[in-house]
Amino acid sequence: MSDNTFWRTSISKVEPNKILIRGYDLAKLVGKFSFAELTYLFWKGELPPQAHARMLDAILCSCIDHSLNAPSVDAARFAASTGVPLQAAVAAGVAGMGDLHGGAIEESAKTLQEGVKRASIEHLSHEEVANRIIDEHTTRRQRLAGFGHPIHTQDPRTQRLLDIAKETEIAGSHVQLARAIEDASERSYTRRLITNVDGAIAAIVSDMGFDWRIGKGFFILSRTAGLVAHVYEQMYAEKPYKMADWKEIKYDGPPERPPPR
Amino acid sequence: MSDNTFWRTSISKVEPNKILIRGYDLAKLVGKFSFAELTYLFWKGELPPQAHARMLDAILCSCIDHSLNAPSVDAARFAASTGVPLQAAVAAGVAGMGDLHGGAIEESAKTLQEGVKRASIEHLSHEEVANRIIDEHTTRRQRLAGFGHPIHTQDPRTQRLLDIAKETEIAGSHVQLARAIEDASERSYTRRLITNVDGAIAAIVSDMGFDWRIGKGFFILSRTAGLVAHVYEQMYAEKPYKMADWKEIKYDGPPERPPPR
Amino acid sequence: MSDNTFWRTSISKVEPNKILIRGYDLAKLVGKFSFAELTYLFWKGELPPQAHARMLDAILCSCIDHSLNAPSVDAARFAASTGVPLQAAVAAGVAGMGDLHGGAIEESAKTLQEGVKRASIEHLSHEEVANRIIDEHTTRRQRLAGFGHPIHTQDPRTQRLLDIAKETEIAGSHVQLARAIEDASERSYTRRLITNVDGAIAAIVSDMGFDWRIGKGFFILSRTAGLVAHVYEQMYAEKPYKMADWKEIKYDGPPERPPPR
Amino acid sequence: MSDNTFWRTSISKVEPNKILIRGYDLAKLVGKFSFAELTYLFWKGELPPQAHARMLDAILCSCIDHSLNAPSVDAARFAASTGVPLQAAVAAGVAGMGDLHGGAIEESAKTLQEGVKRASIEHLSHEEVANRIIDEHTTRRQRLAGFGHPIHTQDPRTQRLLDIAKETEIAGSHVQLARAIEDASERSYTRRLITNVDGAIAAIVSDMGFDWRIGKGFFILSRTAGLVAHVYEQMYAEKPYKMADWKEIKYDGPPERPPPR
Repeated sequence: MSDNTFWRTSISKVEPNKILIRGYDLAKLVGKFSFAELTYLFWKGELPPQAHARMLDAILCSCIDHSLNAPSVDAARFAASTGVPLQAAVAAGVAGMGDLHGGAIEESAKTLQEGVKRASIEHLSHEEVANRIIDEHTTRRQRLAGFGHPIHTQDPRTQRLLDIAKETEIAGSHVQLARAIEDASERSYTRRLITNVDGAIAAIVSDMGFDWRIGKGFFILSRTAGLVAHVYEQMYAEKPYKMADWKEIKYDGPPERPPPR
Repeated sequence: MSDNTFWRTSISKVEPNKILIRGYDLAKLVGKFSFAELTYLFWKGELPPQAHARMLDAILCSCIDHSLNAPSVDAARFAASTGVPLQAAVAAGVAGMGDLHGGAIEESAKTLQEGVKRASIEHLSHEEVANRIIDEHTTRRQRLAGFGHPIHTQDPRTQRLLDIAKETEIAGSHVQLARAIEDASERSYTRRLITNVDGAIAAIVSDMGFDWRIGKGFFILSRTAGLVAHVYEQMYAEKPYKMADWKEIKYDGPPERPPPR
Repeated sequence: MSDNTFWRTSISKVEPNKILIRGYDLAKLVGKFSFAELTYLFWKGELPPQAHARMLDAILCSCIDHSLNAPSVDAARFAASTGVPLQAAVAAGVAGMGDLHGGAIEESAKTLQEGVKRASIEHLSHEEVANRIIDEHTTRRQRLAGFGHPIHTQDPRTQRLLDIAKETEIAGSHVQLARAIEDASERSYTRRLITNVDGAIAAIVSDMGFDWRIGKGFFILSRTAGLVAHVYEQMYAEKPYKMADWKEIKYDGPPERPPPR
Repeated sequence: MSDNTFWRTSISKVEPNKILIRGYDLAKLVGKFSFAELTYLFWKGELPPQAHARMLDAILCSCIDHSLNAPSVDAARFAASTGVPLQAAVAAGVAGMGDLHGGAIEESAKTLQEGVKRASIEHLSHEEVANRIIDEHTTRRQRLAGFGHPIHTQDPRTQRLLDIAKETEIAGSHVQLARAIEDASERSYTRRLITNVDGAIAAIVSDMGFDWRIGKGFFILSRTAGLVAHVYEQMYAEKPYKMADWKEIKYDGPPERPPPR
């Protein structure tokens, strides 16, 4: 460790009585900037223009909760019922935010960012790229991340986010490509695949210039606010030790048998 | 499950094409309210007055990061280096937000809330309660949560938060009691124990009417924004497989010995 | 870090082509000792006598699983359904092994170890100590960890473990005290509180000389074997995205209301 | 949930006073079978033949620890220092067992299982398949999972495991293919890539008939035993609040600058 690089970061710097964030004195930011603005500073390296700040607040609000109708919330509530501290149950929930749960933002943003680049390089229209994306997913028998929803036929959050993206003039080529994919899906599948909240966020943060690889971060941060509420409710308003009732569990393994020795 | 209460919540309700949060249609909140305001709605049940919204934004900004000089960030960065998805490393960090790390908000808020109640019931001044709290901690040889800091002699975030609490007229009896404890500490210990960021948040959220048992939630949510940035940096800007160098590890167990069989 | 103590351990030492465990060359232990024996070496510092090795294997087998009728398993299965890697869902399960779930081993072992010391110092019989323990728990309105079970009226694992503890001549004063508490419970409560698997393990590992503070470790390690099987089954034999059905979730929050702005 | 399949498993069944594991009464297994044997029963559905039982014990012993020279152990120790319960710090460690850390077992077992199938279908020798595997990895610029080690030039655990696999007559075509890859690596790369402990386990469990997708489970379970020891040591033998020293952290972000407002 003589060259002192075991611990390295370009994010922040701590010294006695001072904390620098991307070069700014944290104490001077507190109370002047919103939590969404500071999050933007952390994730993107610079403070956001006003339009981006508003957009990020809207995004973080949009996926804050989906009630118990979400695997991460259910996981957190079971964990919370066992007498763990608050953060442990939140951690269990966050650990359960897999590729199918919030992860679609990442995957969808990747598809859109690659698609927009492809349109530019290969001089294709968004419609042409959309058709190719759908064809490729169909060939690979792959789910199209960011489109379709198990419950909502019109995801109530999508239109709201897209409206704000339009108002703030953030909506650009990635949002257009997402719309083109939705249109193309109607031609290719038996039904129109609606852009879900993950797909809308993916398109918008791509138009905001975020790397797709931080896509899941929006969902993680947003949903953590909801998880804290659920864990708190589980700990203090519900009975302890939540678990599946043994009478409700269907066992379909081998019938009872004697051990070999 | 005939009475349908296995899954119960008063937080939110999902049905096709509609998500209700504490009775409000989520789609109507997005873009109108900040993420801090929605967080307040989730944790407290109602949308905040303007002063509380501003205060919460300041609180969430204040403990968003402490660079690698924080156990949760270090834990997350080691985990992030092993090729896990983003949320897994964030979960490792959140799992490491123990009683000594953010947890002081909870413990300190408990002490302050009980202290204010005691002042009221026993007709004591804040100074008298502060002295008793310090005496009791000294007797029990217990650390006074929310006071003192390993690095900062004046926590740069504390004064800023207390200034905003004053401006917004949120500062009340809990903030006064925290100040009284700081004063009393000077008389009782060899040195003044400064109110640290945890103690300041504890006092302020108590004056905002939050239950102390959700105290760690402020730290968890805030620091999650920072953790995402650190994990992202570790994953894409640092070498994989971060670990202690074997040459740097001091082994002080038994010397080499032959196995008994 | 000049004195090289940032990274310190008495457990093991790694250098090129050699791994020492408590002084033994790991390569010489592999194939000669069982996994339970090595676990014992790790946790206690020395390899076990034959009786202890057999006992530890029995303990690790006894709490390996409780089907989906366990919060940690349920948490892990929800997490597993979201497309996370195997270890992430296992981590979610482990995070949910709280004081009420495996933690009873720790708490019960503490009670028994303190009780046995008290019997010795105050020259009390196990019956007298048992009565005092029950009285104190009743006064503090505290649950007696390690006794009683929500489903089993005779915990099927308890008698088996106690039989082996007797056969191996490990059963000593801590097992006797646990039995005395069970007897005393019948006099003090309306019904006999059976020693559950946690209580049996607590008594036995105390008689084996383990510190009560590592008590939860037995449950964590054992149940991890079960969790891996459950997570694997959830990932590859069940439908993805397990979550509470929205039609089954009872919402008892405020009825729908218009947002204030 | 009228068809009762929300909770389903073929692993185990709980009813009052009885726990069935893959059809066997758990109480009858405890004390008769080792923890490794029960683990095998859980993961593979049947109790192991004697040779497999011995082999699994050896495997679980082989990767139980790598001192602090391992990301998961480091993550767990930072988490443990913050005042969390034992299982929370273990969970942080498990969350950090990514594809580069134990995950190689999974990836390597996949490569070997596919390679052995390919040899059979395409009538190729192990040498031919080995050469193709190396060529394909070179073309894709992909690391060859299970081969090479950052510290050990001869992984001290590999030969021991392979010796036992030979003694027990478990070693078969997957072990042969692993050896062929090691040989082929010498021809293709500048140096011989040694089979590391992950690669050895991958080959052996493939010869034991395990699905590669449960490969990481061996590492997770084994290392959990080590993690418990490290967390316990960190909690009770080390100073609390372990973190990088601020003086050791290299900050290479923007220099101090005034906030824009």
